Formats: sequence, C-alpha cells, structure tokens
Amino acid sequence: MKVAVIMGSTSDLKKVEPAIDILKEYGVEPKVRCLSAHRAHAELSAFIEECNQDDTVAFITAAGMAAALPGVVASQTVKPVIGVPLSGAVLDGMDALMSIVQMPSGIPVATVAINGSKNAAYLALQYCALIDESIRTKLEAHRSEMREAANAANEEIIKKYS
Amino acid sequence: MKVAVIMGSTSDLKKVEPAIDILKEYGVEPKVRCLSAHRAHAELSAFIEECNQDDTVAFITAAGMAAALPGVVASQTVKPVIGVPLSGAVLDGMDALMSIVQMPSGIPVATVAINGSKNAAYLALQYCALIDESIRTKLEAHRSEMREAANAANEEIIKKYS
Amino acid sequence: MKVAVIMGSTSDLKKVEPAIDILKEYGVEPKVRCLSAHRAHAELSAFIEECNQDDTVAFITAAGMAAALPGVVASQTVKPVIGVPLSGAVLDGMDALMSIVQMPSGIPVATVAINGSKNAAYLALQYCALIDESIRTKLEAHRSEMREAANAANEEIIKKYS
Amino acid sequence: MKVAVIMGSTSDLKKVEPAIDILKEYGVEPKVRCLSAHRAHAELSAFIEECNQDDTVAFITAAGMAAALPGVVASQTVKPVIGVPLSGAVLDGMDALMSIVQMPSGIPVATVAINGSKNAAYLALQYCALIDESIRTKLEAHRSEMREAANAANEEIIKKYS
Amino acid sequence: MKVAVIMGSTSDLKKVEPAIDILKEYGVEPKVRCLSAHRAHAELSAFIEECNQDDTVAFITAAGMAAALPGVVASQTVKPVIGVPLSGAVLDGMDALMSIVQMPSGIPVATVAINGSKNAAYLALQYCALIDESIRTKLEAHRSEMREAANAANEEIIKKYS
Amino acid sequence: MKVAVIMGSTSDLKKVEPAIDILKEYGVEPKVRCLSAHRAHAELSAFIEECNQDDTVAFITAAGMAAALPGVVASQTVKPVIGVPLSGAVLDGMDALMSIVQMPSGIPVATVAINGSKNAAYLALQYCALIDESIRTKLEAHRSEMREAANAANEEIIKKYS
Amino acid sequence: MKVAVIMGSTSDLKKVEPAIDILKEYGVEPKVRCLSAHRAHAELSAFIEECNQDDTVAFITAAGMAAALPGVVASQTVKPVIGVPLSGAVLDGMDALMSIVQMPSGIPVATVAINGSKNAAYLALQYCALIDESIRTKLEAHRSEMREAANAANEEIIKKYS
Amino acid sequence: MKVAVIMGSTSDLKKVEPAIDILKEYGVEPKVRCLSAHRAHAELSAFIEECNQDDTVAFITAAGMAAALPGVVASQTVKPVIGVPLSGAVLDGMDALMSIVQMPSGIPVATVAINGSKNAAYLALQYCALIDESIRTKLEAHRSEMREAANAANEEIIKKYS
Repeated sequence: MKVAVIMGSTSDLKKVEPAIDILKEYGVEPKVRCLSAHRAHAELSAFIEECNQDDTVAFITAAGMAAALPGVVASQTVKPVIGVPLSGAVLDGMDALMSIVQMPSGIPVATVAINGSKNAAYLALQYCALIDESIRTKLEAHRSEMREAANAANEEIIKKYS
Repeated sequence: MKVAVIMGSTSDLKKVEPAIDILKEYGVEPKVRCLSAHRAHAELSAFIEECNQDDTVAFITAAGMAAALPGVVASQTVKPVIGVPLSGAVLDGMDALMSIVQMPSGIPVATVAINGSKNAAYLALQYCALIDESIRTKLEAHRSEMREAANAANEEIIKKYS
Repeated sequence: MKVAVIMGSTSDLKKVEPAIDILKEYGVEPKVRCLSAHRAHAELSAFIEECNQDDTVAFITAAGMAAALPGVVASQTVKPVIGVPLSGAVLDGMDALMSIVQMPSGIPVATVAINGSKNAAYLALQYCALIDESIRTKLEAHRSEMREAANAANEEIIKKYS
Repeated sequence: MKVAVIMGSTSDLKKVEPAIDILKEYGVEPKVRCLSAHRAHAELSAFIEECNQDDTVAFITAAGMAAALPGVVASQTVKPVIGVPLSGAVLDGMDALMSIVQMPSGIPVATVAINGSKNAAYLALQYCALIDESIRTKLEAHRSEMREAANAANEEIIKKYS
Repeated sequence: MKVAVIMGSTSDLKKVEPAIDILKEYGVEPKVRCLSAHRAHAELSAFIEECNQDDTVAFITAAGMAAALPGVVASQTVKPVIGVPLSGAVLDGMDALMSIVQMPSGIPVATVAINGSKNAAYLALQYCALIDESIRTKLEAHRSEMREAANAANEEIIKKYS
Repeated sequence: MKVAVIMGSTSDLKKVEPAIDILKEYGVEPKVRCLSAHRAHAELSAFIEECNQDDTVAFITAAGMAAALPGVVASQTVKPVIGVPLSGAVLDGMDALMSIVQMPSGIPVATVAINGSKNAAYLALQYCALIDESIRTKLEAHRSEMREAANAANEEIIKKYS
Repeated sequence: MKVAVIMGSTSDLKKVEPAIDILKEYGVEPKVRCLSAHRAHAELSAFIEECNQDDTVAFITAAGMAAALPGVVASQTVKPVIGVPLSGAVLDGMDALMSIVQMPSGIPVATVAINGSKNAAYLALQYCALIDESIRTKLEAHRSEMREAANAANEEIIKKYS
Repeated sequence: MKVAVIMGSTSDLKKVEPAIDILKEYGVEPKVRCLSAHRAHAELSAFIEECNQDDTVAFITAAGMAAALPGVVASQTVKPVIGVPLSGAVLDGMDALMSIVQMPSGIPVATVAINGSKNAAYLALQYCALIDESIRTKLEAHRSEMREAANAANEEIIKKYS
C-alpha cells in the first residue's frame, strides 16, 4: 500500500516532509515526487498513470501560489487527491488555498489547511484504513495518544495554576 | 456501503441534496441527518459512534458560518470526514471555509469548494471505490461521460464560431 | 467567584496568560484548563458541566485556526462564553475570528479582538461585577487609572512638542 | 432588570428588532434608543450615564460601516457592552466587524456575528441570568426546545431519506 | 493571423463573447474552443500544439473558480497567454484571480480584470499589432474614438451642469 | 468659490450626483467634468491646470476599479483632492479603495467611504469653510439639524418601544 | 496657523512623528496630543472645542485597530479631519482602515494610506495653503523638488543601465 | 529590439532587477527608467512617446501601493504594457494588484504575480518572439532546461526517498 506525495518544487520539501514521515511511521510507503503541473507536464501524467495502475491508495499534492498541481492530478485519476496549499513569500497561502479548494464539479480535491501536510498524511492514512484494518487500529491508537497528551498537558496547566 | 451526510440545519438541505442524489445514483446509501454540532451535541455523538461501528465509509458534513460540525465529527472518528463550507447571508462562505479548512494537526477534514456538495459526493465515492471496484468503474465511466460532454460542447462552440 | 479559562493547546499559553493575571489581580479565581474541542472532547464536556454546577461566572476560551472551542463550550452552557481568536502561523488570526464570531442563532460567543486575551479578562470581570459590587468598583478605579495614565501620557507629549 | 438597546440609525431598526423581541419574551425590559456615536454625542453620553445608575444590566449596540458606537459606549461604562456589526450596501459588514471587534485593551466589546442581533439578545440574557436565576432557567428551557426542534428536524430528514 | 479563445465551460460563453466580437471587428480570426483543463486534458493539449504550429498569435483563456486553464495552457506554449478570471456564484472572482495571476516563475500568464474579456481581446490585438502594422493603426484609431467619445460625454456633462 | 467634480465615466454620474446637489445647496459652484485618467489624459491635465489658476478650492474625484483618477489629479495640483472609491460589478469597491487610499508619500488623496460622494461634498465644503466663514456657519447649522433629526428619530423609537 | 495632531496612544508616536516634522518644516505649529477616543473622552472633547475656537486649521488623527478616534473627532468639529490608519500586531492595518474610511454620511474623515502620516501632513498643509498663499508656494516648491529628485533618480538609473 | 522597464521608485530596483537581467540574457535591450506616474508626469509621457516611435516592443511597469504607473503608461500607448504589482510595507501587494489588474475596458494591462518581475520579462520576451523567431527558439530552449531541471530535481527526490 502506497501513497503518492507530489510537490511542485524542491523548495516545498521542508513543508512536505512531515507528511512523508507520518506515512512511514504507519508503514505506508510514500512515493515522493517533485513534479510541477506547469514544468513537468508529461512526467506528471506518466506518474499519475503509474499510480492509477499500482496499489497507490491516494495522492498528496502540495503547491503554492497559483497551485494547479492538485487539480491537474485530480483530473487524471479517480483515486482520492489531497491538496495542501503552501504559503509563499506573500499572501500567506490564500492564493494557493483559492487555487486548490475551489475545484469545479466532478473533479474533487480534498483540501487541508495552509501548510497542513501533517493532516494530509493523516487523511491519506484514513483512506488506507478503509482497506487495511491495521491502519485504522493505529489511527485510533494515535487518537488515544493525542487524548492522553492533551490530558497530560491539561494536568500540567491545572497544577501550574492552582 | 453507506456514506453519512450531515447538515447543520434543515435550511441547508437544498444545498446538500445534490450530494445525496449523486450517492444514490452510484448505489451508495446516504445516511442523511440534520445534526448541529452546537444544538444536537449528544445525538451527533451517538450517530457518529453508530457510523463508526457499521459499514459507513465516510462522512459528508455541510455547514455555514462558524462551521464547527465538520471538525467536531472529525474529532470523533478516524473514518474520513468531508467538509462542505456553505455560504450564508453575508461573506460568501469565507467564514465557513476558514472554520472548516484550517483544522489543527491530527484531525483532518477534507474540504471541498464553497457550496461544493457535488464534489463532496464524488470524493466520498472515491473513498468507496477504494473498497468496491465497481464504484471505481462507475467513476471512470463518469469521467468518460464528462469528457464526452466536454467534447460535444467544444464541437458545438467550434461549429458556432466557424 | 471563578472564571474558567480554557485554551486549545499549551502553545497558546503565552497569549492567554495576560487574562489569567488580570483575573487574579481582581481576586477572581481562574480555573485554567488546556482542553481542545477536537482532542479532549469528553474531558471538556465534564469540565463545562462542573463549571455549570459551581460558582463559575463565565468562560474565557482561546483558540486559533478553525477555532471550534468557543462554540462547543457555548453549546453546553448558558453561562456567558468569551472567545479569543488567536493568530497562528498564517492568516493573522482571520481564520480564528471567522470561526468564533460567526456563531449561529441561539448559541452566542462574546468575541474579542485577535489575541485580545486582556479584554477577555476585563469582559469576564464586567460579568463578575454584575453580582459583586466590589469588582465593579475596582473596574471603575481601573478606568480612572487608565484615564490618568492617558492624561499623563498626553501631558508628556504636550511637553515634548511645545 | 433592563437591557439598553442602541442602534446608530433608524434604518437599522429591522435588523435590531429580533433582539428587542427576544428580550421581551424573557421579561427583560429593553430600553431602545437610536443614538449615533457621531450624530448624537451628548444624548448618547447622557443615556449611558442613566443606564450606569439604574438597573440596566448590559448594552446591546448595533451599527454598520465605521461602527464607533459599541466602542464609544464601552468607553463610558463598565457594564458589559455587546456589539452587533451590521452589513451595509457594500463589504457585507466586514467594515463594521473590524470596527467593533478590534477594540484596544481595557475597553472590551463582546462582539457577535454580522447582523447577529438575536445572539446579542441571548448573550444579554445570559448576563441577566447571572443575577436572576429564573432567566437562567428560561435559557436552559430554550436550549431544550432548540434541541427538541433540532431532533424533530432530524427525524423529518431521516424519514424523508429512508 | 488568429487568436485562440478558450473557455473552461460553455456557461462562460456569455462572458467571453465580447472578446470574440472585438477580435472579429479587427479582422483577426478567433479560434474559439471550450476545453477545460480538468475535463478535456488531451484535447486541450492537442489544440495548444496545433496553435503552436500555425499562425496563432496568442491565447485568450477564461476560467472561474480554481482556474487552472490559463496556467496549463501557458505551460505548453511560449506564445503569450492571456488569462481572464471569471466570477462565479460566490467570492466575486477573487478565487479565479488568485489562481491565474499568481503563476510561478518561468510560465507567465498575462492577467486582466475579473470578467475583463474585452481587455483580453485588446491585449491580444496589441500582440497582433506587433506583427501587423494595420492593426496598430486600427488600435490607435480606436483610442482616438475612445478619446472623442470621452470628450463628447464630458461636453454633455458640462452642458448639463452649467 | 468652486469645487471641481470629476468622474471617470458617465456611468458613475448617479453615484456622484449627491455630491453635486450638496455643493449647490451650499452655494458652491460645482465644475462637473467626465474626464478619465486613462481615456482623456490631455483634457484632464488642461482642466486641472485651469482649476489651479482659478478660484477652485478643491477637487472631488470619483472612480471605480483600478481608480487612477484621484492620484493623477493629485499629482498635478497642490489643492486638496478628495477621492471617492466607487463599487463596480464585482469586489464591492475594494479595488477602487485600494487604488485611491494607498497613495505614495508626497501626493495625498483624501479618501472617503466606498460610494461616499455625500461625504466628499461635505469634506469639500469644510475646505471652503476655511476661507468663507458663511459656509462654516451653514455646516454647523447642518450639524445641528442632523442632531435634531437624530433626536427626533430617537424620540420616535422611545415612543414606539415604551 | 496650527494643525492639531492627535494620536490614540504614545506607542503610535514613532509613526506619527513624520507628520509633526513636516508641519514644522512649513512653519505650521503642530498641537500634538495623545488622546484616546476610548480612554480620554472628556479631555478629547475639550481639546477639540479649544481647536474649534482658535486658529487651528485641521486635525490629523492617527489610530490603529478599531480606530474610533478620527470619527469621534470629526463628529465634534466642522474643521477638516484627516485619519491615518495605523497597522497593529496583526491584520496590517486593514482593521483601522475600515474603521476610519467607512464613515457615515455627514461626518467625513479624509483618510490617507495605512501608516501614511506624511501624506496626512501634506494634506493638512494643502488646507493651510487655502488661507496662506505662502504655504501654497512652498508646497509647489516641494513638488518641484520631488520632480527634480525623481529626475535625478531616473538619470542615475539610466546611467547604470546603459 | 528593446523593452522599456519602468519602476515607480528607486527603492523598487531590487525587485525589478531580475527582469532586467533576463532581458539582457536574451539579447533584448532593456530601456530602464525610474519614472513615477505621480512625480514625473511629463518625463513619463515623453519617454512613452519615444518608445512609441522607436523599436520598443513592450513596456514592463512595476509599482507598489496605489500603483497608477501601469495604467497611465497603458493609456498612452497601444504597445503591450505589463504590470508588476510590488508588495510594500503592509498588505502584501494586494493594494498594488487591485490597482493594476482591475483596468477599465479599452486600456489593458497584462498583470503578473505580486513581485513577479521574472515573469514580466518572460512575457515581454514572448512578445519579442512574435517578431523575432530566434527569441522564440531561446524561450523554447529555456522551457526544455526548466523541464530538465525539474526532472533532475525529481530524480534527486526519488533517490532521497527510496
């Protein structure tokens, strides 16, 4: 079971890495690529086609500015595509968010928060969990850990202020 | 195979119905509910728990304004949650979009376009297709139809302007 | 007399502390908690219920991004809930503001400025003053001090520029 | 027990009336005034002073555009002031929201949604409930009704789609 | 000499027609197509390639929402591409503007105003004028007419108010 | 004593007329022109020069979209220039506001509200009042009338709700 | 001849000082005050009244966030009031701009750019020039200097790139 | 063959230089000027007229804030004008973008991304390529290099993550 992780530019790598790390933690193989919708058109199509044929479950696509990548991927697959709007030098990622979330009917992109690559990974894992019960179990365990960490943080706060 | 469809208010029904219709077309049973995160707290939790236990594949959640519903659902399940920001009387749905897409790490919501309930359905069907090959076939057929319709439209335009 | 102060994450603590300090100055006990609407659901509900039963006057809730916390608290109490939108890494807190201020009818959240935890405290103290005349007196004294400080600042400016 | 309801212009009346009606339903007397911060300066100050002296619990202030009214009222009282940003001919009320919610430290205004006068009333009633247990009981009953109405709506939806 | 005019959907036709009409007025043949970047991928590429080979001078591309069309065209040609952001049901075309104007380095799209298809035509004609002096003459004549019309309008206004 | 009133297009006339009417009421002669910064460049410069030489006190300039008119006028005179951002078919006048208010240092434009031509007139009259005491007296009388009208409106509201 | 310069807080001083310096350069006496509309209500009114009676020509008012100061000053004088929106910790001054420029009819505030205190000074000087020809002469000389400086900068650029 | 490059202020030079460098790389002579629409009116007009007469192919105009420069240039030529919105101290260049892209019908400005001077150069070169086949060849070679660089980056990413 694999998840394709496509960024538009190597300069996005640092923002995308958390997604790659989380996928690996869960034993899902990330197929990482740097393929711009605008600069590597043919290679992108070839890679999407490859993923359409193999056991890739979903696509994580991260791009900034006029972020066409997620939509272009989504238009060439019926596997779920997750879009991560990345903030650039100006506009705080609102340009990328608008370019990714406002997709026309028939070609959905599952959009997460600006720079939200962690959630892109968790969403992809939720997709994997639909076909692999063990991942669902791990995700539920993660939620328990989150809850415990949250409770521990709360206990510390309570202690600090009483 | 089912998809839960939750709206925050009956006044949202007209905007949500296209999603329900599409799910039915594909033979996926919509479990439609009107359960506000703010007004039907316990009932919402009970319904999420029920869906966690049965063969519900995903949640479609549609809400406007300070749209807490998608995030609250996402926090109680590891099944994928799709959020549809609805436009209200003012602000064109930007308030709902901000409330839905900007989820904190660990609790993803797959956000689609403002009033984009059709794409919410297609996204949910892509999830279903991960476990039911026949739905993937239908989605691919739909894409072919879209392409044919697009080509037909293009032919008409070409004819009109030559 | 107490005021509950709930933040969504310990990383918010520095932005919330001014509220805690002000409450203490006025002799109002802050019940500080770190309880995310999305990660500590049951604990949050239990805490709200506890506050509903004791002499807690109001809730101060501070959260960033898709800030569901204030609305979720407000939906489980009829005591007044104050929402403080916190700025995150991007968008300057507009996401949190939209998520907090645009509440649907019936479940109000009293929203203050982005990162405005001081005013959240003063607002909570105004609520306390409705039942404790001594706090009203202190708030009026504070206003006098503000006025005096403002006048002193003005005098200094006048001196500097004449 | 009274709640002052101040609008900046008679043209705002239709948007403010729901607040007046709700207050009356709960047996709280609305002291309704049309007093612009910019056009009726002295009268506004006199009215605030009157409310500071009598049993007025809180102020509801509604204004559009460069909405100075809520802040000006808040600067002359330590009773809680609720601000309702009203939408005008352009900008959907974002101008009024910015003018009301972004108050400087020391002078809080409890801001509700754009055109959210109903929630302004419910918030004011929550303040009244701090000193009058019977109003708290009514507010809790209202919540129960909301929950029942929500459940009834949900039942109808379930029936419709099964 | 030709100018390609591509819209993403037939529903955009009414907003694109003024561009077609202006091109015809100037004796430039519009090659009108309806080719979505997301729904008619292969056909779009084929058409761009055709235009790259023939005497097409430039591309006018009009699209709304997450408007990938202009960028996708620009990535497959070095002939100038003009992007017209179209307003949709919500957001007044800001989503399309962000998706079109914020192109990454190396793949420019010449963006005009929201719904500004007339200016897209005039810009395309300015490109044509670089290789056909007669069009430059016509554009200069048009400017003269605009100036005369402006002066006539001014004269009327002067008469009306004196 | 005169005030120049320049609109960019005759289609703006209806939004500009209230300014013209107010100037006339106060006995100040409006010199109304329709002179686009982009379409009637030379005529605009000639008119500004004329106003620089005669007893024109100020310029009211109203324009929508990429509203260069106010800044272009301001760059050719040291008499005060008032800018009125007009709303167009989209964006509610935010484009015009940005184009008018954000002038670089040295060339100020006194910007009023979107579609705020009435206030443009009152501001121009305040300039006239600096050199003609009788206009100041009229403006003060107008304020008194506003105050009386506001008080009458308030009385009516009081009567209606008591 | 004097110009009142009012800032809402001493923390604004650094942003306001350029206006003070420019006024002094032109021999116009700045009456500098630090008087918040919200914190120094009575003192502000007294100062405005004083300025209404003496030879103060105009008011420069600078404030950030929910910037009520300019409007409150404008409501108590018919002398021209200039508003300078100041940027705060978040939102880049859009909150202050909305609070200042969107004034209701009858009470104009001449708004300049965000943090544009220099232009506030130049605008005030243009008002002074209406009654003092020597200031007009200086302003025209300043424009000549700007033009010369611009030309010198241009010459340098030309030299650098040829 | 030349391209005019006009910036509004020498402080913009660093943001404009990439355009100048790219033009030179392609053997196109940049005619660089610093000519503000607001401060060097006559010189700007003279320069535009000069470019209208010589073999200048297009204008690149870069400006921030209320950026009138691109529109003013466009109104005095029928050669294509490219506008580069520059970000200033606040607002991230949205003010300049609105001032440049929202041009009225008849006077187009080809707008590129905020601070997008590189794309301004590439767009200008695409115009040059319409009349000089050798530049088209170079632009196509550049695209090949971009594709190769993109592929190399992709290969590195693949290696890193496998």
